[in-house]
Amino acid sequence: MHRFSKKVSMTVVKRLPKYYQYLSDLQLNDIEKISSRELASLMGLTASQIRQDLNSFGGYGQQGYGYNVGELKEAIKEILGLDSEYNCIIIGGGNMGHAIANYERFKREGVILKGVFDVDPLTVGTVIGSVVVKHMDELDEFIKANEIDIAILCVPREVGQKVATQVTELGVKGILNFSPLDLDVPSDVVVENVNITDSLFTLTYLLGE
Amino acid sequence: MHRFSKKVSMTVVKRLPKYYQYLSDLQLNDIEKISSRELASLMGLTASQIRQDLNSFGGYGQQGYGYNVGELKEAIKEILGLDSEYNCIIIGGGNMGHAIANYERFKREGVILKGVFDVDPLTVGTVIGSVVVKHMDELDEFIKANEIDIAILCVPREVGQKVATQVTELGVKGILNFSPLDLDVPSDVVVENVNITDSLFTLTYLLGE
Repeated sequence: MHRFSKKVSMTVVKRLPKYYQYLSDLQLNDIEKISSRELASLMGLTASQIRQDLNSFGGYGQQGYGYNVGELKEAIKEILGLDSEYNCIIIGGGNMGHAIANYERFKREGVILKGVFDVDPLTVGTVIGSVVVKHMDELDEFIKANEIDIAILCVPREVGQKVATQVTELGVKGILNFSPLDLDVPSDVVVENVNITDSLFTLTYLLGE
Repeated sequence: MHRFSKKVSMTVVKRLPKYYQYLSDLQLNDIEKISSRELASLMGLTASQIRQDLNSFGGYGQQGYGYNVGELKEAIKEILGLDSEYNCIIIGGGNMGHAIANYERFKREGVILKGVFDVDPLTVGTVIGSVVVKHMDELDEFIKANEIDIAILCVPREVGQKVATQVTELGVKGILNFSPLDLDVPSDVVVENVNITDSLFTLTYLLGE
């Protein structure tokens, strides 16, 4: 777990995964160092934004040298908390639950799928992403026994809040929410929403601009 | 198609789908009018933000009355461009393509799925979301014949840019991009990214905060 003395803005936080992606690509292409100007040009940012962003975390560049790609990537991996492992469960074994369960990237970055839960008798007992789907009746016991850090919600809107309340009461501290509603959770729980309909509507708006 | 004289900030644009969702819910619950304060409290915003947001589009409230829920919802629907229909295709018939093809909400809001494309011989010819999956070899002709407005990209990262270039050269002006890469497209094309890995990493970051 990382700790910083000052609060970093969400705009910067939201850019961190992008840094991580670009630096990983650079490393794959055997590029060992990069200037803030080159990185900025790749990422569609300004060199000054890059320097400011990275300074929020203590700064990693060397004047006249630029950034060591491997070191900076590892630093950002740590900042993102990806040096830890996370136990996760998916609630809702429909199409979206399926899609997420098969994301190989999650596992590669230490987010381990421990269980998938559903209420549909046709889904319970099938295999999704290498685990056997369990009934929601088993959820409480499972979370207690498996130290679940993250619940990925892929349930219908109507039951989203009920499920969120259930998992947070059992101690889950992170929710990746694909259900199209705003969740009301205790202040020590973090929620990241992926609202696909909202993204579609932003697109239709921009198409008319 | 809507047109505004002044440029509206992306922060406000990104909130519009949320307004649309909340107003639709209020309407379903037979609530006919709402004050900016009540709407703000529901949405976790301030009344002043709400007034400012809606003023960007000309303003819809009446002093001392508040907003007429049905009228405001219809106005925002139009601002979002949801009074028009859009022909869309999904490229990539894997789990994510499946999930999106079965989103009933898309159709309900006038985004009509015209085709799904893939290269996998096991996927081509199967039915996804009520359409028969075609081979990518048929893509060019299909786009020309069907006036496709939106391409939804659910392809692996490695081919994302190639597919984006192909569809934009054929005249597609909107891309909803689920492939985890930043696309390089002509300036008259709009792209909305849904990067699920980025959302997961934001969550792991916040879990460590």
